[in-house]
Formats: sequence, structure tokens, C-alpha cells
Amino acid sequence: MRFAKGHGTENDFVIVLDPDGRQDLTPALAARLCDRRAGVGADGVLRVVRTAVLPDGNTAEGAEWFMDYRNADGSLAEMCGNGIRVFARFLAGHGLVTEPEFAVATRSGPRLVRLEPDGNVTVDMGAVTVLGPGKAVVGGEVCDGLHISVGNPHLACLVDQPLGSFDLSRPPELDPQQFPDGANVEVLRVTGTRTLAMRVRERGSGETRSCGTGAVAATVAAVRATGREPGAWQVSVPGGQLTVTFEDGTAWLTGPAVLVAEGDLNESWLTAAETQLDPAPPRH
Amino acid sequence: MRFAKGHGTENDFVIVLDPDGRQDLTPALAARLCDRRAGVGADGVLRVVRTAVLPDGNTAEGAEWFMDYRNADGSLAEMCGNGIRVFARFLAGHGLVTEPEFAVATRSGPRLVRLEPDGNVTVDMGAVTVLGPGKAVVGGEVCDGLHISVGNPHLACLVDQPLGSFDLSRPPELDPQQFPDGANVEVLRVTGTRTLAMRVRERGSGETRSCGTGAVAATVAAVRATGREPGAWQVSVPGGQLTVTFEDGTAWLTGPAVLVAEGDLNESWLTAAETQLDPAPPRH
Repeated sequence: MRFAKGHGTENDFVIVLDPDGRQDLTPALAARLCDRRAGVGADGVLRVVRTAVLPDGNTAEGAEWFMDYRNADGSLAEMCGNGIRVFARFLAGHGLVTEPEFAVATRSGPRLVRLEPDGNVTVDMGAVTVLGPGKAVVGGEVCDGLHISVGNPHLACLVDQPLGSFDLSRPPELDPQQFPDGANVEVLRVTGTRTLAMRVRERGSGETRSCGTGAVAATVAAVRATGREPGAWQVSVPGGQLTVTFEDGTAWLTGPAVLVAEGDLNESWLTAAETQLDPAPPRH
Repeated sequence: MRFAKGHGTENDFVIVLDPDGRQDLTPALAARLCDRRAGVGADGVLRVVRTAVLPDGNTAEGAEWFMDYRNADGSLAEMCGNGIRVFARFLAGHGLVTEPEFAVATRSGPRLVRLEPDGNVTVDMGAVTVLGPGKAVVGGEVCDGLHISVGNPHLACLVDQPLGSFDLSRPPELDPQQFPDGANVEVLRVTGTRTLAMRVRERGSGETRSCGTGAVAATVAAVRATGREPGAWQVSVPGGQLTVTFEDGTAWLTGPAVLVAEGDLNESWLTAAETQLDPAPPRH
């Protein structure tokens, strides 16, 4: 089985090209691929499948390729703002798309992506909904923030303290009435005109180097707090630089998407991974 | 540049075949390769070089291949008990050795390795020296142990508490007079006749899934504590199972060595990695 590895602002992925939908990428195999010690290692797996071979391919609305995304634990996910940018870079690198702008089918519907002339990749992150104020206790510190939906729930907290002073090693405490499904929690500081720096703790993943929807939520909170026009914001995450732009009622996420390597999984490793009945939980 | 990834009891390595010694594997590139988000990801890099092309090749004493080992931060290391087993598996898998037993040159001299019929790989870990009693404070718990040299310094502590109860997230406190260079600290329990379970915190690495010299040190401490004959001990580490055997004044380490994948580094990633003047510290 061929694979590639890539990352977007250090949110990293194993990519499996499967145009005809013939790979049996089970949850256990996905988890094993993402295992950072016993496998290839990644935050998730992106399977590249032609929409034409999907049972529900007719819902792809013109998208030629479907991003079958799984988290590192093997569970399905709907969308991933960094993942889809790496997915688009892979398609372009393999000549699987010919135009610089195209739609990619995802479990949350087709998303427009654009290969920028400077090598960055932009993706339509969809509509953003501000749901009101909220608060979290982050490593003992009470943080006031804004409850925002970017498809998934966020609490984006503008803070005064240095970002490095926050302990994100444990889950922030949230009001379970307000966040029955939990939330990704961002701490952020406005660092200049339309620039911000942030750290994020993701539901079920812990602190990560980057989070696409988190960058969008943080920008919305920064726009609100500063009273500035939305426009294009530069967002510093631990894994690099992203740009968030609001236009036509949607948020666009722009940033690097890097292919690190390509190769073949070892046959005997693959056999062992596929026949393993009780895979170890992925470790990061 | 071609690469492979493999692991021995989840101690994992990037392997670079460089028979003629032409690859300029700088510390910065090694660190970037080991970066688990922006690179391939591993605990270290094993460069596979013919001893004949080394300036000091005449010191290899019959070994055809030299293991040029670097840690995840790019620094040189002398030997690695799990790394050399993966190195041997790679040689065999590529037809670079023809006998099941051969010497591999390392910075701490040539080491005998043996490909076992059951697929495991055994390596001569050299002489072990017991230096006397010692103690460490491990996550607030005072642990008595045995100060042992397996080329590198260890404190192996036989404990009564469940191994899972120890906090190895911070460095154990050691007497700096006794351990001027620090030490790897093992907590271990004897679990049956010539069986033990252990966890280890390695100097400069934190808690790891496995440590070859640590398994040897733990076995020596268990032999002393139980008064049993040395023989062959089964050692459970978080990343799997190892066997430590004492024979002819040397310790032999046996265990699995797995090749996960092989491939090519992306040219543009490699160019960026090579030209990066100030690489980020590796993250695990």
C-alpha cells in the first residue's frame, strides 16, 4: 500500500491514494497508521477517493475527489481545515486536478479550495456563528471568551497574560450546560493590526500545534474585541502562520501545505496491522 | 533521498541507506527528519554506511557496516540497543548481509548481532558493572535502587507499588555527587520466575516506550534482589517484550525489530530542511 505524509502548520496526516475505493481502511488500520511509534505517525488519515465510485457520489456537487478523513483513533471526522489543504496539495502534486480552484467533497459537504501562486492553499471554512459569551477555567485561570460555532464548538478567550503561561496539559473546565459536547478552547492575544497569536486545546486531542477552525474562531473573537474590520488576519499558531479572511459570509483559511515523503508500507507490517484484533490506542 | 522507518519495541528510527558515505546528514537535517509533526518522526536516525569508506574503517574489526546513530535532537550517540536491532533487520531485508550472525561497527566498537529463526534480533550489549546502591525521588516517591553502568549510567529501582502509579513526567531527583552525568531511571517489579515489568525515564528524552540498556540494568537489579540465577529473563516494557540473557560475561538483548515503511523524501521538503538555519527543536 502506497502512502504519503504531509502537514499543514504541523497538523500532520498520512495520505492514502485510493481512486477506485478499493482499500479497506478499517478504523484499526487507520489508528495503527497514525501510531507515532509503531506506525507512520500522524494526527489523522486522508483517503483520496473519486466521488464517482461513492454510493452517494451524486451529492458531491461537482467535486471529483472525496476526502475520507479519520482521526488518529480511527474515528470518522467530517472536515479538517488543515487536512483539506494538505489533501489539495497532494491532488495537485499528483496531477489529479488541473485547475487552481476546485471543490473537494467532505462529510460536511463540498468545500472550495484554491492553490495560491505563492504555494499556500486556501479553503472555504464555511459560515461562522457567534453564540454569545462563555467562560472556561484553564489551568486554574478563569478565562472569559466567546462561544463560537465553526461547524464545531469553540470558546475563544482573549487574554492579557503571556500565552506561554497557560497550562493546556489538562482539559479546561467548561459549563456543561453551555457546552454539552465540550469545545475546543483557544487563548489568544492581539499582537498588532489584524495579527493575533493563539494556542489551542482540542476536544479529545489535547494541545495541538494548529487548528484550522480554532484559527477562524480566534479571529472572530479578535475582530469583536478590537472593533476592527474583519479583512485578512494573520494568525500565529505554535506550528506556523495562517491567514483568516472573511468574505461573502464565509471564512477562508490560507496557509502552507507540505508533502514530506511518499513510499510503501512494508507488507509484513501491514499484515500484522490488519490482523491485529485489539490495536493499542494511538500514542502521541 | 530514500528512507525507511522501523521500530524495536516502539523505540523508532528513520533509516538512511548511504553505503558510500555520500549523504551529508547534518545534525539539523537529522533533527528535522525526527520531528514528529514537520518531518518523518522518530527517536533517532540510523545511517547505514560501509566501514570501508570510513576514515577509521580499519577499527571496525571485520564489521562490514557502520551504524551512524544520531538522537532526535541531531546529537551523536555511541550505541542504541533497540536501534542496532532495527539496523540489522534493515541490512537483512535489503540483502546487505548474508549470514545470520555478524558484527556491526558502532561508535562504541563492533557489536555482534544475530537474526533469530523466529524473527527476533539479538545484540551483544557488552559488559555490565554494578556500582552499588543509590536512590532517586520519582514524582515525590523515594525509590531505592542499584547504580549500574551498561555503558551509560542507570539507577534500577525494584518497587512495591503498581508501576502505573509513578509519575515519570518530570525528571527524577538524583544525588548529583553519585550521578554527575544524570542517569536513566527504571522502576521495576518482578512478576514471576525470571520475568519482570518495568518503566523507564531516559536522560534527556523523558519517559520512553522501551530502552535496551534499561532492560539490561533492570534485569541485573532483579537478579540481585531475587537471588535467582541470571539465565534468560523476560522483560515487559510499555512498547513490548524483550529478553535479556547473561552469558560469558556479557548481556544479550533479544526482541522484535520491525520495518514499517520505505520511501522517498519529497525534494522540496528536503531542500527546505537542508537550508533551514535555525531548526525548531524536535517535538515528541
